[in-house]
Amino acid sequence: MKKNFGILILSCLLLLLTNADALAQRTPSNLVSPEIHPDGTITFRLKAPNARKVVVSGTWSPKSFRSVEMVKKDSIFEAVVGPVVRDAYEYEYIIDGIPTLDPNVNLVTRDGAWIQNMLIVPGEASKVYEVNDVPHGSLQTIWYPSPSLNANRRMQVYLPAGYEDSKDSYPVMYLLHGGGGDEECWLSRGRANIIADNLIASGAAKKMIIVITNGNFQTPAAPLNRNSTMSIAGGIGAMASGKFEESMVKDVVPFIEKHYRVKADPQHRALTGFSMGGFQTQNISNANPTMFKYIGVMSMGLFSSALRGASDYSKDKHVAQLKALIQAKPAVYWIGMGKDDFLYDSGVKLRALYDEVGLHYTYVENEGTHDWNSWRMYLKTFMPLCFQ
Amino acid sequence: MKKNFGILILSCLLLLLTNADALAQRTPSNLVSPEIHPDGTITFRLKAPNARKVVVSGTWSPKSFRSVEMVKKDSIFEAVVGPVVRDAYEYEYIIDGIPTLDPNVNLVTRDGAWIQNMLIVPGEASKVYEVNDVPHGSLQTIWYPSPSLNANRRMQVYLPAGYEDSKDSYPVMYLLHGGGGDEECWLSRGRANIIADNLIASGAAKKMIIVITNGNFQTPAAPLNRNSTMSIAGGIGAMASGKFEESMVKDVVPFIEKHYRVKADPQHRALTGFSMGGFQTQNISNANPTMFKYIGVMSMGLFSSALRGASDYSKDKHVAQLKALIQAKPAVYWIGMGKDDFLYDSGVKLRALYDEVGLHYTYVENEGTHDWNSWRMYLKTFMPLCFQ
Repeated sequence: MKKNFGILILSCLLLLLTNADALAQRTPSNLVSPEIHPDGTITFRLKAPNARKVVVSGTWSPKSFRSVEMVKKDSIFEAVVGPVVRDAYEYEYIIDGIPTLDPNVNLVTRDGAWIQNMLIVPGEASKVYEVNDVPHGSLQTIWYPSPSLNANRRMQVYLPAGYEDSKDSYPVMYLLHGGGGDEECWLSRGRANIIADNLIASGAAKKMIIVITNGNFQTPAAPLNRNSTMSIAGGIGAMASGKFEESMVKDVVPFIEKHYRVKADPQHRALTGFSMGGFQTQNISNANPTMFKYIGVMSMGLFSSALRGASDYSKDKHVAQLKALIQAKPAVYWIGMGKDDFLYDSGVKLRALYDEVGLHYTYVENEGTHDWNSWRMYLKTFMPLCFQ
Repeated sequence: MKKNFGILILSCLLLLLTNADALAQRTPSNLVSPEIHPDGTITFRLKAPNARKVVVSGTWSPKSFRSVEMVKKDSIFEAVVGPVVRDAYEYEYIIDGIPTLDPNVNLVTRDGAWIQNMLIVPGEASKVYEVNDVPHGSLQTIWYPSPSLNANRRMQVYLPAGYEDSKDSYPVMYLLHGGGGDEECWLSRGRANIIADNLIASGAAKKMIIVITNGNFQTPAAPLNRNSTMSIAGGIGAMASGKFEESMVKDVVPFIEKHYRVKADPQHRALTGFSMGGFQTQNISNANPTMFKYIGVMSMGLFSSALRGASDYSKDKHVAQLKALIQAKPAVYWIGMGKDDFLYDSGVKLRALYDEVGLHYTYVENEGTHDWNSWRMYLKTFMPLCFQ
């Protein structure tokens, strides 16, 4: 009875907030979707009386299921996907060509312009991506001055459970994102804080601080957290400048080491990132070989031209940097690459060069593309290797 | 040239991540949308070759513009809305009956299941909702134990700029949300931290800590921040229990006063919320009349039956509570209500009762419904009244 009153009032409220079409779509119905079955198959259902073609598109493996056309029966479109690997996935509906969120689901993540639903197929392998009953670290969303970029910028800092009530100092992982992303994507889509909570709670990883910056040097903060009239030049286009890398070394690391209880030495600094962040990870650790003892390059290889734009690539200079890095003896140099990544060949070149100069690395190659399923898995894999 | 390489690589990346239909929709085009004109009109454009009917639906004033059918020309739907009041707005497209985000825009906010785009029409009146070049406070997303609910729960804490580098103690505002919402909506849709940054920077409001909890007692955290297999009973249906109110008093306030530098007395505690949060604000301040000197009830009036479910409403008990509250001399008792709010009549009844018993209040009535434009404005109005 309580609940009926509640639903009645909620319905009135919704009716006032939007129009009848949208309300009909959002009113709780008997439509269960997505329905995740014990065998790892997923049934998607969407009520779309006027649509002609609906595709459910998701990041699941195997790839053969990635885009499945749904079958219309009366006004409901339906498709069964899988069985899929037990993991966290992004998905969306493409209704007559338009990408659309699942209208009955409030689980939404964002990486740049990519706003999609998320689902988790429960199982042993996906447990690390779940919010479990373990101690949770805190997140701080802060602004810091970046003199080298002449800007105030926003970043996210994960503090492991117990930080506030202890007097300990902690190691720090700097975690970089890809082109088009921002300081929110490793939390929204990457579940970095949840992965860290779980790995730390199980003892698989050491307690650490994780720092997530905005890797586009012209962009001080994520959308809606910067002035709405600010025009932002394209993210990945700015990769070649080296400016973000400079700000990391001159501004971010010193700020973190001043404002948090941090073990401020190379043995307690890790640096990793995917795609553009993997490029920046290389640039930073190549130019500052003694700064980080733990280095992780995700889904990125050797770029001798394209991503460097007008700047000249010099193999001699690169080799000299790598020799200095070998001298500095990184504790872990880790590389992860998906077999179907469009940057796969660049990874082959990078490893060939490292083999040539004698830089030792750990290499993980997975069934995957240039995607968040890989990046979450890489973080889960790299984090336990750090600070041991 | 740099940029062209970047776009090339980005395009390859996008192609791999989704299918061609969605890619075509998301590929940067010449389509400018929304285009906000200096006179306060907005042109919306959407490429949807296969759609029959598209409506752009937004929260703007005047209300006559709220749902506007777009006109199709070739494959582009277009509509001009306004001129609208200079404010921040939520909007979405309804494509053949399905609510859809603007596929070219990454500005998205969420309140419960309501996931929509946001835009800001620039102007003097909307400047308080903008990220301006002022000192920014920090946000802490933390978990706290709630013994009275037998759960660990997530909340958001805004710390004013300068908190970390000072030794001062600060007053605290507890800010509650509506039914269906969670601990993220006052930040995502409500822009509470941005409003606070601006009001504090201009001197209009005192520096204060703002605490945003999850008001649904059965729900420990927002979607994707709780276990995905957890089944959650409906939010607003739980309003009648009084359990959240108990946890605020017994768990939240003591936790905040223990873990932050807080002026822990009634003169430095404010409590406010909208809709369900306005009901909870009444319940908490009625049952604990000496606890908060600043009380704000947004978009909520007197509920003698429906929202109380099976529990009996006793006017005698209510009046006795209000008399105790009068005795406790609140510094500010503030009420805000939109003229077209579906709860307007309940507000009339509440004010009549307050007049009858002699509880003084400040009343603001605005052109508005039960909506975020009102709630952001109420926060902007109420915050400067606190702790003066």
